[in-house]
Amino acid sequence: MTKKNVLRIGVIGTGAIGSDHIRRCTQTLSGAQIVAVGDVNSDNARKAVSSYNINAKVYDSGHDLIKAEDVDVVMVTSWGQTHAEYVLSAIKAGKYVFCEKPLATTIKDCQEIIEAEQACGKRLVQVGFMRPYDKGYRELRNAIANGDIGMPLMVHAAHRNQSVGENYVTNMAIVDTLIHELDVLRWLLEDDYVSAQVIFPRSTRHTHAKLRDPQIILLETKSGIRIDVEVFVNCQYGYDIQCAVVGEKGIVSLPEPASVTMRSDAKLSKSILTDWKERFIDAYDIEVQDFIDSCLAGKLTGPSSWNGYVATVAAEACVKSQETGKVEPISLPNCPSFYK
Amino acid sequence: MTKKNVLRIGVIGTGAIGSDHIRRCTQTLSGAQIVAVGDVNSDNARKAVSSYNINAKVYDSGHDLIKAEDVDVVMVTSWGQTHAEYVLSAIKAGKYVFCEKPLATTIKDCQEIIEAEQACGKRLVQVGFMRPYDKGYRELRNAIANGDIGMPLMVHAAHRNQSVGENYVTNMAIVDTLIHELDVLRWLLEDDYVSAQVIFPRSTRHTHAKLRDPQIILLETKSGIRIDVEVFVNCQYGYDIQCAVVGEKGIVSLPEPASVTMRSDAKLSKSILTDWKERFIDAYDIEVQDFIDSCLAGKLTGPSSWNGYVATVAAEACVKSQETGKVEPISLPNCPSFYK
Amino acid sequence: MTKKNVLRIGVIGTGAIGSDHIRRCTQTLSGAQIVAVGDVNSDNARKAVSSYNINAKVYDSGHDLIKAEDVDVVMVTSWGQTHAEYVLSAIKAGKYVFCEKPLATTIKDCQEIIEAEQACGKRLVQVGFMRPYDKGYRELRNAIANGDIGMPLMVHAAHRNQSVGENYVTNMAIVDTLIHELDVLRWLLEDDYVSAQVIFPRSTRHTHAKLRDPQIILLETKSGIRIDVEVFVNCQYGYDIQCAVVGEKGIVSLPEPASVTMRSDAKLSKSILTDWKERFIDAYDIEVQDFIDSCLAGKLTGPSSWNGYVATVAAEACVKSQETGKVEPISLPNCPSFYK
Amino acid sequence: MTKKNVLRIGVIGTGAIGSDHIRRCTQTLSGAQIVAVGDVNSDNARKAVSSYNINAKVYDSGHDLIKAEDVDVVMVTSWGQTHAEYVLSAIKAGKYVFCEKPLATTIKDCQEIIEAEQACGKRLVQVGFMRPYDKGYRELRNAIANGDIGMPLMVHAAHRNQSVGENYVTNMAIVDTLIHELDVLRWLLEDDYVSAQVIFPRSTRHTHAKLRDPQIILLETKSGIRIDVEVFVNCQYGYDIQCAVVGEKGIVSLPEPASVTMRSDAKLSKSILTDWKERFIDAYDIEVQDFIDSCLAGKLTGPSSWNGYVATVAAEACVKSQETGKVEPISLPNCPSFYK
Repeated sequence: MTKKNVLRIGVIGTGAIGSDHIRRCTQTLSGAQIVAVGDVNSDNARKAVSSYNINAKVYDSGHDLIKAEDVDVVMVTSWGQTHAEYVLSAIKAGKYVFCEKPLATTIKDCQEIIEAEQACGKRLVQVGFMRPYDKGYRELRNAIANGDIGMPLMVHAAHRNQSVGENYVTNMAIVDTLIHELDVLRWLLEDDYVSAQVIFPRSTRHTHAKLRDPQIILLETKSGIRIDVEVFVNCQYGYDIQCAVVGEKGIVSLPEPASVTMRSDAKLSKSILTDWKERFIDAYDIEVQDFIDSCLAGKLTGPSSWNGYVATVAAEACVKSQETGKVEPISLPNCPSFYK
Repeated sequence: MTKKNVLRIGVIGTGAIGSDHIRRCTQTLSGAQIVAVGDVNSDNARKAVSSYNINAKVYDSGHDLIKAEDVDVVMVTSWGQTHAEYVLSAIKAGKYVFCEKPLATTIKDCQEIIEAEQACGKRLVQVGFMRPYDKGYRELRNAIANGDIGMPLMVHAAHRNQSVGENYVTNMAIVDTLIHELDVLRWLLEDDYVSAQVIFPRSTRHTHAKLRDPQIILLETKSGIRIDVEVFVNCQYGYDIQCAVVGEKGIVSLPEPASVTMRSDAKLSKSILTDWKERFIDAYDIEVQDFIDSCLAGKLTGPSSWNGYVATVAAEACVKSQETGKVEPISLPNCPSFYK
Repeated sequence: MTKKNVLRIGVIGTGAIGSDHIRRCTQTLSGAQIVAVGDVNSDNARKAVSSYNINAKVYDSGHDLIKAEDVDVVMVTSWGQTHAEYVLSAIKAGKYVFCEKPLATTIKDCQEIIEAEQACGKRLVQVGFMRPYDKGYRELRNAIANGDIGMPLMVHAAHRNQSVGENYVTNMAIVDTLIHELDVLRWLLEDDYVSAQVIFPRSTRHTHAKLRDPQIILLETKSGIRIDVEVFVNCQYGYDIQCAVVGEKGIVSLPEPASVTMRSDAKLSKSILTDWKERFIDAYDIEVQDFIDSCLAGKLTGPSSWNGYVATVAAEACVKSQETGKVEPISLPNCPSFYK
Repeated sequence: MTKKNVLRIGVIGTGAIGSDHIRRCTQTLSGAQIVAVGDVNSDNARKAVSSYNINAKVYDSGHDLIKAEDVDVVMVTSWGQTHAEYVLSAIKAGKYVFCEKPLATTIKDCQEIIEAEQACGKRLVQVGFMRPYDKGYRELRNAIANGDIGMPLMVHAAHRNQSVGENYVTNMAIVDTLIHELDVLRWLLEDDYVSAQVIFPRSTRHTHAKLRDPQIILLETKSGIRIDVEVFVNCQYGYDIQCAVVGEKGIVSLPEPASVTMRSDAKLSKSILTDWKERFIDAYDIEVQDFIDSCLAGKLTGPSSWNGYVATVAAEACVKSQETGKVEPISLPNCPSFYK
């Protein structure tokens, strides 16, 4: 048997998304192997190892995992609060690291990561924003770039979940949910935000005391594009992501996911997804394959820590507006050439 | 030949919409006859009479037409500034009057009409808001009323024209265009506005110095429903009216107008209308037939002068916000039982 | 009051479609008045007169009605078997006659009508095929005529009813149902049939012993176009008319009727009609208005008795194929210039 | 570095589909490695090896490749005429073999393969029918199996290519194109064919002397389901696969591929694919991954050589009907329990 050039990955955090990436690298994608798994609860790590039947060492400490000699690159899929320390540790070790969103929970931590990465002279961090890998968003972006709709002027978007749990509170509509739009819309429009405002419509009865739901977020970009995003996480009917970009001579909209058409009971209908994991399942595969290929090729091209930083800054302005009810400015330093 | 019970109508104003109503009553609808036509330029009136080959008397003065004995009811389709005086004159004559939108160009004139009509003790005025007669909007309203989407929480709407002329300026986006949404959305939601704000995205290059285009209008209702309406009158691609009502458990959207589906040149496509007159052509027919039938039955049920008044009040708040950039309150007296 | 030029119509037969035309002429359309009504059961005629509150004389005999001096034109909406005699009687009286489909139930009767009409030197008969007045079919025809799809090569069509009664038997799938496709497809393609074959798929359990349901009808035209029509009259889910014309460079398809879009319960859905009367309601209005206008103008242009004759000939070949299972030839004389 | 359990594949034939499978196994899928490549023209094999930068031995003889010790399993992607001998050779070597369609070009060769495989006592052959791996077809099948449309009665299908080359002649519409429908429709309906007929509509001008295009194929199944498939390989507008299954209470149809929606130039449009390789790209990935996983698990579950045999028998009846113009019977032995 000839040997394949296989990237050896260590995964820190074996919750839903961590397990899913282990499965993905093991059963679906090409060129990688999970050789190390860590979790604050090492039983969970062991469970993941056995359930995917992989030959991987279990670590108690994420930092030990990062240092391990047979770990080529690191995936950080632990609790958001711990992302920054592991990413910084990986940068210190000079290893590529894939960090699930958010890059960090504070602007300060994001800044520290950016500085450490620049100091090291080479992009080492990819942030887990998967939407730019979605075929529909790519078609949107191509249509805009081709000039099919002329200059973009407005975006109407919506992010709807069937329902969320009791521990999902008002600001998570921004930091957990809108964060995806905050990243992908910048990428789509090749533009930056200058202000944000959150409006609260009357709340649905399907929410609870600590969650205003739905919310409408209004964003303005440098070039004057106006964006409205409806975030509605207890919409009951399904998981539904909408995005329409209105340009000077046309409008391009995200496709509905393909589904068989049914004629029955006086209805012409298609299914709407209910499980968010289904919606971007292909994008996750492409995203992680791209990370693997980029590591093997020695050059990252996916969403950078700069993207993670900017999304965090914009999210913070939105959260502030949730409290003040006002238009909050978003100000960013110029993007270093390092990240262009 | 037996006689049909025919309503004798006098029309004041023979511009585009006036001529169209003359054609409609003469060639398409049942139960009415145009017996009198007036226009500030009586040549235009004569032209209308001869082009539809009708047996109607031409009047120099709208007020004389209103008083004419063989005129049972009046249609006011003259220049907006003159609506109020003709409507008041018709009320004074105790005749039913169909007045194209706007009912009047000032709130004061609207109030005067409302008072005169109430003093006369009987509804005499129908305002030419045709959208509540559109099959699509009626289906929307029924779906909401049936509880198919639960309680409404948000409305996303758009009003797009292919292009407008040089004399269409910024405030006309409200008083000429948005006015239809201002009326129909109240009817759809059975709710009233409490505030309005206008936001200006970057302007399209296809506009001119005196017109900010597009505009986004944000409305709030008494019950807390939030409405966003995009008004974009130089969108280039067609005449396009969108309306989606988001409720607690579902969303109902206005249908796209029916059109053949074409597969050709690597596209699956349908036509988008370019002529606004086509979009609501059936609604205009139903609206005017309803006015005729209501007059013959002795009881008006269509959009009232109260609707005309409220739309004018809301429009004024929007125009003010165009200038101030702020959220402007909309305050209305209680609706008199006379209009319920 | 000035007089309107009103066409005085006598209606023979006050079943479903007859009553509907009385309503239409009385309440919706312009330029006509029902002055005479006949029915084999004159109680039905009286009922129709009173329910629409019209001033019309009731006749025991259709032939007397036709002769009545104040009856300008005749509508034949009686039982199919009696169509021929009333149409011939109207031709003899030199009066325009609108005859619901079928023109006659035998080829021989159709021929007699054609000859009588030609002998009289002027088109007097319009057959009640309403589909050529449907906006969707007109768009289809225009697209073909414009060359948008190139030369037509195939047609895929379907005619589906939710369910039919016990008295609807196998051959009625042709003479009652397919007859509409037989007429409208010729008009669409400007071509004539040369053969027909009927194929019986396995029958649905929702049919009865005397009805094979569904059926597939294969037609060939002079120019070699191949047509397949699915007739399925107990399809359960709704009333659904489909028609796709495949040409050398594209395909054009009949629109789905406009309906609001609903997002709820994990479905994106539109309504499908269940009542056939709704599907072509606009077409019926336009058809009858066109008959009225044509009579007033003194020149019929709608579907002629030649169309009625050809549809009957094609239907007979289909019925024969239901029995033989074979491809049956359809042979027609050349169309007289009188009917071109 | 720990070792991954990797399936070592030898590929015979490096044309379009062979190269594509090499790329797929190397860059996209998990668990396999291309270790041997053969082609009648060994330059082509070398080119494939170098273009995907793989570490694989090049063979002049397919039979030598099959025998090679480090080749675990074989992929046959050579010219159709050579499929049978390589498949038989792989069976003899007791190795799993993935054979692109057709399994063989004659019924006799298919029979020989079936017998050899049964004699060997274990399923070794998977035939390259990828449509059962397509998400849309799987949804169709699930909907039918769930009883969503009741018992299937009819299928309306279409297989359209933008254009084909000069060497594509009339019978290839069956053996190259329809063959996919012949396989997937049996799988969808869980039924077998009893007869076939081919009808030739008027030909498009975009074809050539040796190709009748389009063609309509009529199939009947044991249970009486009637199928019509339009094969139109110069349809000009795109690559388009349609399939609607009509059941006793509803209809389920294959989805259109997802594509952004565009509003521009008075059109509401979506793209239609033009490249057939794009249409089932995901299905190809899933198909080959399933083959890899099945080999590693020691049990094939994909399309069997029985499927390949049945498709060939049905195709032969269709080709015969192209010549006779008649309904040709399709008779098959009972499916051995080995293949159930």
